[in-house]
Amino acid sequence: MHVPPRGLWLDQGRVMVLDQALLPHRRVEIELNSLEGAARAIQTMQVRGAPLIGACAAFGLALGLREDPSDSGLAAAHARLLATRPTAVNLLWALRRVEAAVGALAASQRAARAWHEALDIVAGDERDNAAIGVHGASLLAALHARLDRVVNVATHCNAGALATCAGGTALAPVYHAANQGLPLHVWVSETRPRNQGLLTAWELGQAQVPHTLIADNAAGFLMSRGEVDLVIVGADRISANGDVVNKVGTYLKALAARDTGVPFYVAAPTSTIDWDCAEGRATPIEERSVEEVLQVQGTDASGRAARVAIAPPATGARNPAFDVTRGELVTGIISEKGVAAPHEILRAWR
Amino acid sequence: MHVPPRGLWLDQGRVMVLDQALLPHRRVEIELNSLEGAARAIQTMQVRGAPLIGACAAFGLALGLREDPSDSGLAAAHARLLATRPTAVNLLWALRRVEAAVGALAASQRAARAWHEALDIVAGDERDNAAIGVHGASLLAALHARLDRVVNVATHCNAGALATCAGGTALAPVYHAANQGLPLHVWVSETRPRNQGLLTAWELGQAQVPHTLIADNAAGFLMSRGEVDLVIVGADRISANGDVVNKVGTYLKALAARDTGVPFYVAAPTSTIDWDCAEGRATPIEERSVEEVLQVQGTDASGRAARVAIAPPATGARNPAFDVTRGELVTGIISEKGVAAPHEILRAWR
Repeated sequence: MHVPPRGLWLDQGRVMVLDQALLPHRRVEIELNSLEGAARAIQTMQVRGAPLIGACAAFGLALGLREDPSDSGLAAAHARLLATRPTAVNLLWALRRVEAAVGALAASQRAARAWHEALDIVAGDERDNAAIGVHGASLLAALHARLDRVVNVATHCNAGALATCAGGTALAPVYHAANQGLPLHVWVSETRPRNQGLLTAWELGQAQVPHTLIADNAAGFLMSRGEVDLVIVGADRISANGDVVNKVGTYLKALAARDTGVPFYVAAPTSTIDWDCAEGRATPIEERSVEEVLQVQGTDASGRAARVAIAPPATGARNPAFDVTRGELVTGIISEKGVAAPHEILRAWR
Repeated sequence: MHVPPRGLWLDQGRVMVLDQALLPHRRVEIELNSLEGAARAIQTMQVRGAPLIGACAAFGLALGLREDPSDSGLAAAHARLLATRPTAVNLLWALRRVEAAVGALAASQRAARAWHEALDIVAGDERDNAAIGVHGASLLAALHARLDRVVNVATHCNAGALATCAGGTALAPVYHAANQGLPLHVWVSETRPRNQGLLTAWELGQAQVPHTLIADNAAGFLMSRGEVDLVIVGADRISANGDVVNKVGTYLKALAARDTGVPFYVAAPTSTIDWDCAEGRATPIEERSVEEVLQVQGTDASGRAARVAIAPPATGARNPAFDVTRGELVTGIISEKGVAAPHEILRAWR
């Protein structure tokens, strides 16, 4: 069985996550046990990935309500969590869902109800990802039936199990198809500047799915040489017209896929769709610390975590974390509800 | 004056280059003083950049003829140098040029004649780059006249002074325009896996040209937001139909430029054009060591050169060094002869 690690789990009532700022170099488990701890974990990308951010924000709100269950406590917790990262809509979606569940309750009942709602978000995420896996795997199976050889999938960033509570979004079809015995190989883009592709390499390695790391620059070349059969990426926000906001570099891959005739799919639960957002370019794009561009994290010769500066000392940098891929560049969106063309999601899934 | 460092220079009859495998972290000068030394310098990318590779190969052949001026010595030197790197056509062009000059001579006269020819290649490269600077700067001046603000140029890899004997190809117009007082800013792509963008940042810094480093993934986003006015890159080989083989990732930038309406120029001397190559996809694409993908070089906290592994230990990688950008994606090619559309170069410059 090809089973990836979980992104979030419960251990005797404690909410546990992996510190993804240290992966794949060190595997460290951390407990989310306070509002501030959850907010920091999201902000510093100890947890990342749109669905996992949503779940962690829900637990953060529940933890905040334990600390202060009043209306002002709820508002302050909401504001603190929402300020962590502006682009992934799942964060706002999860906060609203917990708030809708607790808003009418007496203060004394709020924390327990919020915790329950957060657990429900986790269960829902797991269920959604399993459904995404089934829908997406049928696309891979159809490709395999036509090609009759190993199917080469390319992905970007990490929209795997680590980006979710369990199972992944873009990688869910890969795991599902691999477990059905389909021969697969995944091209993993490094995803500078944060190198989340290494998280993908790590979890594919843990799940024993064949994969190969490439520089972000190499994806277009491989597509032009017929070495990619299908691209699947995740999403941080999908607008009502089917535009996709995802990790910076996604747009370049989508352009190359269109230019080379490679199908380009986006896998995300419908909680990633912002029905209030008419088109992708209206989404706020997070600009992160330039240190992420100027430095690279890895391990030194003795296997210890280490960081090197890559640029001359006076060099400045710019670090937009996401870009916008217009729906017309996307072959289909795979959600828990099925597969739809981007321009059809409003009619099909709203 | 905005004067970049030279890529190659003569010092009391010795041929000197900078060790670009150590830049920008350490500045070390090396002398090319043997055939094998020149071949190794090209192969290990101590020298890189199509025009500089050509010049170093010419000196390598001259040095080889000092060691063995016979026909078989000439053939062996040719074979050793040609085997170093397969993609840049300037290498073959320079070897052929030196051979044409020495082939009919007595063995005793060959080395001196070859050395003279190599010096002539250096002088020609410097002249060509100055002409490219003039032709390209007029494009930048026209943009500035229209925009009436700082002109934002994006480039990829290093096609600057360090990629040539002096002056650069893609950056020659930038230096020329800056010296005319045109306000400019350059977006520098990191250019994983070898990070030649850091060479560009270093030489732009030396020449005091404003610039900002970005991850390769960010170029499309910046173009989509109107933050890039023009892209200029170099080339390792241009086919007769105007297709451009250049550092991997160039193709993705060209696609984004077309999609966003940003002019995309390629600057290269006509020695980069392979008239015998009908189209770009016929060019051999070098696949380099996977270590380049799996490791990153930089400096540690105490400023010492250091290298980190970025991937989990068992991760495999793939490392194509170039890609092909079809001429239809290129607004114009800037050579020492002027500016021409890719489909016009055969008629205009052959």
